[in-house]
Amino acid sequence: MEIQVFSTYNELNRWDLSGKTVVAIDVLRATSTIVTALANGAKEVIPVETTEKAFLKASKLSPESFLLGGEKYCQKIEGFHLGNSPKEYSPDMVRGKKIVFTSTNGAQTITASLNANKLVIGSLLNGKAVACELKNSNLDLVIACAGTREEFSLEDTFAAGMIIFHLLQFKSCHLNDLGYFSYKFFCDNKQDGPKLFYQSKAGRTLLELGLESDIRYCAQMNVSSVVPSWKGDAASLT
Amino acid sequence: MEIQVFSTYNELNRWDLSGKTVVAIDVLRATSTIVTALANGAKEVIPVETTEKAFLKASKLSPESFLLGGEKYCQKIEGFHLGNSPKEYSPDMVRGKKIVFTSTNGAQTITASLNANKLVIGSLLNGKAVACELKNSNLDLVIACAGTREEFSLEDTFAAGMIIFHLLQFKSCHLNDLGYFSYKFFCDNKQDGPKLFYQSKAGRTLLELGLESDIRYCAQMNVSSVVPSWKGDAASLT
Repeated sequence: MEIQVFSTYNELNRWDLSGKTVVAIDVLRATSTIVTALANGAKEVIPVETTEKAFLKASKLSPESFLLGGEKYCQKIEGFHLGNSPKEYSPDMVRGKKIVFTSTNGAQTITASLNANKLVIGSLLNGKAVACELKNSNLDLVIACAGTREEFSLEDTFAAGMIIFHLLQFKSCHLNDLGYFSYKFFCDNKQDGPKLFYQSKAGRTLLELGLESDIRYCAQMNVSSVVPSWKGDAASLT
Repeated sequence: MEIQVFSTYNELNRWDLSGKTVVAIDVLRATSTIVTALANGAKEVIPVETTEKAFLKASKLSPESFLLGGEKYCQKIEGFHLGNSPKEYSPDMVRGKKIVFTSTNGAQTITASLNANKLVIGSLLNGKAVACELKNSNLDLVIACAGTREEFSLEDTFAAGMIIFHLLQFKSCHLNDLGYFSYKFFCDNKQDGPKLFYQSKAGRTLLELGLESDIRYCAQMNVSSVVPSWKGDAASLT
């Protein structure tokens, strides 16, 4: 299996993703939140690029069937039911609901990957489950890190390395430079997840907002077996 | 000191480099070759983006005063005196000469950095010397990795981490995510330079071309005290 890791969603535009699987990763916090929402019983997650598209999409759904969730620059959006903190997506809140979701980096990464053959959502929470899901695939793999405001993100690349670590338990893989770097980095630092993330741009922003508990939650490894994947017809993740 | 590391020269276009120092790095092989050429007595190195610009620049220089050097996709360019292998830039060959130089990634990175306040050339050969040169600077720092054909490069990022490692001996620095990642990676793998580079995209290309000795040469750390820097008036590195 060929594995390419990219550090920001901007890089996806330069590649033909057809015939490939994409794993989209935004550890702090979009993909961790999507995994959590679906694990807690949300019916589906509908990612959209902008606040405007979220309201437009919601306007076409029946009342009571959906929740608007997400953030812009780490802040909850006015008129939305939920922000981008996974702890808001509790079973009581999300069970049976469609979540129309937008965020600064993660939702962009997902929507930039829609021409892939298969699209799955990765995070540290479900990294091993993602690797298990892909271990028998014949498709080459792109691991699309969201990055933070179009820059390399420490926690997303750490998660890419973690997924590669688990895939390598199952099969041999050929890695691009960032894939190899991520894998080696994960192996050398896998005990230090949360502590590392306090150093990152996204981590420091969350600390400033008093959201340390989100960092600790999103830094948990392999606590979920949920592997959200894209269902094109419904334009949603289930 | 604020330090931002970027993984490819494309990213430089998004940033205002005025008021900053840029260290341009292309370990395999452009910046290693430039350091070697100047260490071996070349008068100056004039980086240009394209083969055409190299011939144009050379046409304005007096015969015997210059050599054309560099590569396109790792191959020597027809009509050039020298390729991009540092071993070609021996004292006998380059002493007293101006080197008009172009390459696929490194020369682009240098020319993309020309609006910085100060521009220096980094490599593993002179990493500690670069850190010494910058230790008393009040300017913030951009470490501009060339990357390999617009993708993240393992060896350039390793070198960025090495320069940060040496800078941190002198002063406290605030690092962006890739800076922190590079620094940690270097600390965890600093004994493994050449072996690591055999895995990289640029390294594998050089191996296929029978140029393993170039990888071993460029992977040497801190063997040169030469710190090429940009002299705007001469549009050259000395």
